Amino acid sequence: MDTQSAASFAELRRVVAEFPGPDLASATLAAEREGQLTKPTGALARLEEIAAWLATWQAKHPPQVNHPRVAVFAGNHGVADLGVSAYPKEVTQQMVLNFQAGGAAINQLCKNADADLRVYEMCLDQPSRDFTQGAALSEEETARAMAYGMMSVEPGIDLLCVGEMGIANTTSAAAIAAALFGGSGADWAGPGTGVKGAQLSRKAEVIDLGLARHRAAFSDGFEIMRCLGGHELAAIAGAIIAARIARVPVLLDGFATTAAASILLKSDAHALDHCLVAHCSAEPGHRRLLEKIGKQPLLDLGMRLGEASGAALAIPIVRAAAMCHAGMATFAEAGVSNKD
Amino acid sequence: MDTQSAASFAELRRVVAEFPGPDLASATLAAEREGQLTKPTGALARLEEIAAWLATWQAKHPPQVNHPRVAVFAGNHGVADLGVSAYPKEVTQQMVLNFQAGGAAINQLCKNADADLRVYEMCLDQPSRDFTQGAALSEEETARAMAYGMMSVEPGIDLLCVGEMGIANTTSAAAIAAALFGGSGADWAGPGTGVKGAQLSRKAEVIDLGLARHRAAFSDGFEIMRCLGGHELAAIAGAIIAARIARVPVLLDGFATTAAASILLKSDAHALDHCLVAHCSAEPGHRRLLEKIGKQPLLDLGMRLGEASGAALAIPIVRAAAMCHAGMATFAEAGVSNKD
Repeated sequence: MDTQSAASFAELRRVVAEFPGPDLASATLAAEREGQLTKPTGALARLEEIAAWLATWQAKHPPQVNHPRVAVFAGNHGVADLGVSAYPKEVTQQMVLNFQAGGAAINQLCKNADADLRVYEMCLDQPSRDFTQGAALSEEETARAMAYGMMSVEPGIDLLCVGEMGIANTTSAAAIAAALFGGSGADWAGPGTGVKGAQLSRKAEVIDLGLARHRAAFSDGFEIMRCLGGHELAAIAGAIIAARIARVPVLLDGFATTAAASILLKSDAHALDHCLVAHCSAEPGHRRLLEKIGKQPLLDLGMRLGEASGAALAIPIVRAAAMCHAGMATFAEAGVSNKD
Repeated sequence: MDTQSAASFAELRRVVAEFPGPDLASATLAAEREGQLTKPTGALARLEEIAAWLATWQAKHPPQVNHPRVAVFAGNHGVADLGVSAYPKEVTQQMVLNFQAGGAAINQLCKNADADLRVYEMCLDQPSRDFTQGAALSEEETARAMAYGMMSVEPGIDLLCVGEMGIANTTSAAAIAAALFGGSGADWAGPGTGVKGAQLSRKAEVIDLGLARHRAAFSDGFEIMRCLGGHELAAIAGAIIAARIARVPVLLDGFATTAAASILLKSDAHALDHCLVAHCSAEPGHRRLLEKIGKQPLLDLGMRLGEASGAALAIPIVRAAAMCHAGMATFAEAGVSNKD
């Protein structure tokens, strides 16, 4: 696919409609091998499921995680000016500089996981518009951001971690989640970087104003992104689309990332089958959202940082699954007595 | 401490009575630094707690995880002959050979975590005795196994993962847990390597017979280990003792490992403060045991393999905590606006 050309929703919808399905041949090979490895049946549990999932969506057996990439998309939001965050909008750019200088948590987490980190600045000086006053983005801006996100999926990577940085983007994410799955601002708003009390009520109210204004758009995921989203959130959806086509499994980070990903479910209930959720955020909307989309996170460590931190932290778990599956001896090879 | 000399319970009790406490100076330094790092306060949650715990028990700031060791203790159990396991006793030795040949899950998990793996064979041809007929071990055997376990803590390691391999040792572990915390065989017995139905009932009954015979020993952790334990379980308790003295934090693996560790709580309610539980096993007794000892596992992936697999899988999480704490920039260094 020429990602540069994906500049309209019509084209993006065509791409999603042609998503490749699970590779059942690789899944079958994974299941066959799993039963022969030197451990009681099912004893590696979730690691076995991850190995099967990797094989299924890499369309490859044995699967491998040798070149994981962490993509962090940064964007600014018009609603930041409504007092919904504990930090000023300038922090988005400052944190991008911190990523580039190697000083953020994600830098250490990528080093720990031996992963390649890419940070994508999405028009930081042109925030999405305040969605209480109109659509956050135009169709062209949304589609362009998605196409830009697609470029994070380059040849050679075998696992993609997606995350974000964007002051006020949990407000946008909460609005997207409410538009997709129902509920009010109060149901989906959380502390984000640390708001509470009257500021948290204000955040819920801002979300409700956005929902009231854009209700006509709620039947379509791309329209929800346009009306309530932001550049970095659209880019995340684009990256997930490109990963599916390139047979690259995806680890989703926290609340904002999962909300952005979920817009694709309006087009295809299986659109996120190549994605796992890495970590359940302390942001309360995330657990609620995970129930709605039926995904069980790999980790649950109370983190609420964003910047792909949960996804990067989970890479070693996913790599461990691939390594056990590919590298363990079979009962026959090891001369170990099997139960049967 | 001369671990070779620790050949009696009296000497071991002296060692436990002189356990070093938390290093509050390092803990204070960790707390001070944590508040300055470029993230919202508390946003790394459990990772922040782990960094503080590492500093506290390494007695060092910043803490580091550069030389993790995985110690797997293997032992055989007399109760294996009572039909409590899905596998024959010979599998313990076969799996040790598999560990040595690099074919087991733990080999891959250590490679994934960049950890040093040591496998300790504990008198595999001399199983502990059937505890329904008498004490599983003599005091000398128990103390010698503990002293042997202590040798796993060598200079230079900065994190110790402990685990076990031993056909029928979940029966022994369940008996130890019941002796420590009350309840019957049915309360603590689980499928282990995969028993169910009549075999699971038999397992519970074997535990009840052991409990009935050794009830007089239940006020003392070392005596519980002698009556109901096994060589590898005693070695685990010894390794945990040596790690405390050497200022090496410990990751406990699953049910059998946690039960073995818990005997030390009878001597000192804080004896396991330098230990974290890495993973909650699918073996149902483990969750129950974790509630009793007040420990929250880092991972919960449904695994039930033993062989230190859960502990090795958690190493990258613990290392990530140390790396974020030591390597992140402060707000001042990065020029990022803080909330205050």
